[in-house]
Amino acid sequence: MPFELTILGSSSALPTSERYPTAQVLNVLGRFFLIDCGEGTQIQLRRQKISFSKIKHIFISHLHGDHYFGLIGLISTLNLLGIKSDIHIYSPSELKNLIQAQLDFIKGGMNVNLIFHPLNFKQPQKIYSDKRVEVFSFPVKHSISTCGFLFKETQKQPNIKKEVIEEYNIPIAQIKNIKAGDDFITEEGIIIPNNKLTTPPTQPRSYAFCTDTAYHEPIIEIIKEVDLLYHEATFLEEMRDFAKKTLHSTAKDAANIARLAKVKKLIIGHFSARYNDATLFEKEARTVFENTVAAKEGKTYKIKE
Amino acid sequence: MPFELTILGSSSALPTSERYPTAQVLNVLGRFFLIDCGEGTQIQLRRQKISFSKIKHIFISHLHGDHYFGLIGLISTLNLLGIKSDIHIYSPSELKNLIQAQLDFIKGGMNVNLIFHPLNFKQPQKIYSDKRVEVFSFPVKHSISTCGFLFKETQKQPNIKKEVIEEYNIPIAQIKNIKAGDDFITEEGIIIPNNKLTTPPTQPRSYAFCTDTAYHEPIIEIIKEVDLLYHEATFLEEMRDFAKKTLHSTAKDAANIARLAKVKKLIIGHFSARYNDATLFEKEARTVFENTVAAKEGKTYKIKE
Repeated sequence: MPFELTILGSSSALPTSERYPTAQVLNVLGRFFLIDCGEGTQIQLRRQKISFSKIKHIFISHLHGDHYFGLIGLISTLNLLGIKSDIHIYSPSELKNLIQAQLDFIKGGMNVNLIFHPLNFKQPQKIYSDKRVEVFSFPVKHSISTCGFLFKETQKQPNIKKEVIEEYNIPIAQIKNIKAGDDFITEEGIIIPNNKLTTPPTQPRSYAFCTDTAYHEPIIEIIKEVDLLYHEATFLEEMRDFAKKTLHSTAKDAANIARLAKVKKLIIGHFSARYNDATLFEKEARTVFENTVAAKEGKTYKIKE
Repeated sequence: MPFELTILGSSSALPTSERYPTAQVLNVLGRFFLIDCGEGTQIQLRRQKISFSKIKHIFISHLHGDHYFGLIGLISTLNLLGIKSDIHIYSPSELKNLIQAQLDFIKGGMNVNLIFHPLNFKQPQKIYSDKRVEVFSFPVKHSISTCGFLFKETQKQPNIKKEVIEEYNIPIAQIKNIKAGDDFITEEGIIIPNNKLTTPPTQPRSYAFCTDTAYHEPIIEIIKEVDLLYHEATFLEEMRDFAKKTLHSTAKDAANIARLAKVKKLIIGHFSARYNDATLFEKEARTVFENTVAAKEGKTYKIKE
């Protein structure tokens, strides 16, 4: 079952000829979560052959234009395509009015039903959950209210060994209880302990998205040991002062967060348009955290089960 | 001196993986006119290496999203770049409020100074002129108020033959008058007629932009004999009824307008996303008007002097 991230855009405020503003799609077990929606997102979705109709949940980290200017175009397109879905938008509360004012102007009915969920910038919060997946928002440190997002599979149940079902003739009705931890008692009254019936579940996979943000240690506890971390690296160390002033991170900052949070893999992005060589960012980050890659438009990063 | 059109986007309402929504830049003698500004325009400008600072005049044909959703991003970028210019926007009057509401939300001062010029949808109107260039708007026929645009060099003055300046020792002060049609009287009192002093000027070049519009004969007189016509061709003839219903044109419609207006060259675009082969449009149009090409993203069409 997939747990994979596709980068649609990884530039900072000024797009370049190669990088679009921030947008990415996380596919968790067939749920397509759109994270940020910079200008051009719908074009990038087309290029990646990701069906518009799969987008039901959109997460907007903050209201700088390079993170949401593509939303009105995407919503218009969903509408033109006649998609009649609920679309949940998790964002700063002001986005609702910004979008609604534009939709009011577009004559003709809306097919999609937009449901806005205001983010909490004071503390981490669970903002989505179903049986298999949970999503949390958490405040990061930027020039305006900004949230990061954490996507996690829920704790999985153990797997029952196929051979024991046959061996002990276990009825289907019992399987749920065994997965939940019960032992099994055979018709002869013999107790088969749970650990003989099951194998441990695979570890729940997780992904954290942190942009835009200055170096901010309070997030470490929240994103601890995620399989994949996307952390902004707008500047190199040579521009540390400017990074601090604009509340952005350097590549080294991102790597330090990854190291302290003991994440498995780090993707850096949101590179300033003044640089045209992303390998400089990789090099700087790898001095601190080896398993770092620079985000690349159109690339998909898979996390195995 | 250049007179050339660069296509930035030529899709219809739904962008495809190869075509962006409508946007193009016309360079007339170094003046860069941006015509429509669909989502992704700023990215396409980057790709074409057209400097943002050259954009001073923006023409928006109508307020369907695929013709203006890129404007807020472009304005934000001009602002971020610290460009301190007047930017003139020629558009339906409602655009001002739509953009202003978004700008009001973006905190921090504006560097650029936006000047909105409302279009007239009742009759053709001169909306821009300087010594060398004139721009006219004219109503076309669509589901909402929409204008086409006509860009023309002004009538040029004759050229003075270099050799006659020396031969008759013509003072610089006289050249302006001779260009305006005067004869020249030598010190000896001999009248040299104007046609011996000058060669006729090159023909003023012209370009017309007509999208979105149904087949609409009243525009023929206005765009008569232009060097280059961009006319929408959203559908093929097989969808004539749907074209009529949605107030769009077929490739054949566009070609018929080109033929009746005796234009020199026709570019068709705004193809519906349901087609993925633009040559079908070219083929259909060429049965009526041979010198037709399908618009191509990133391509520049030059008109020689």
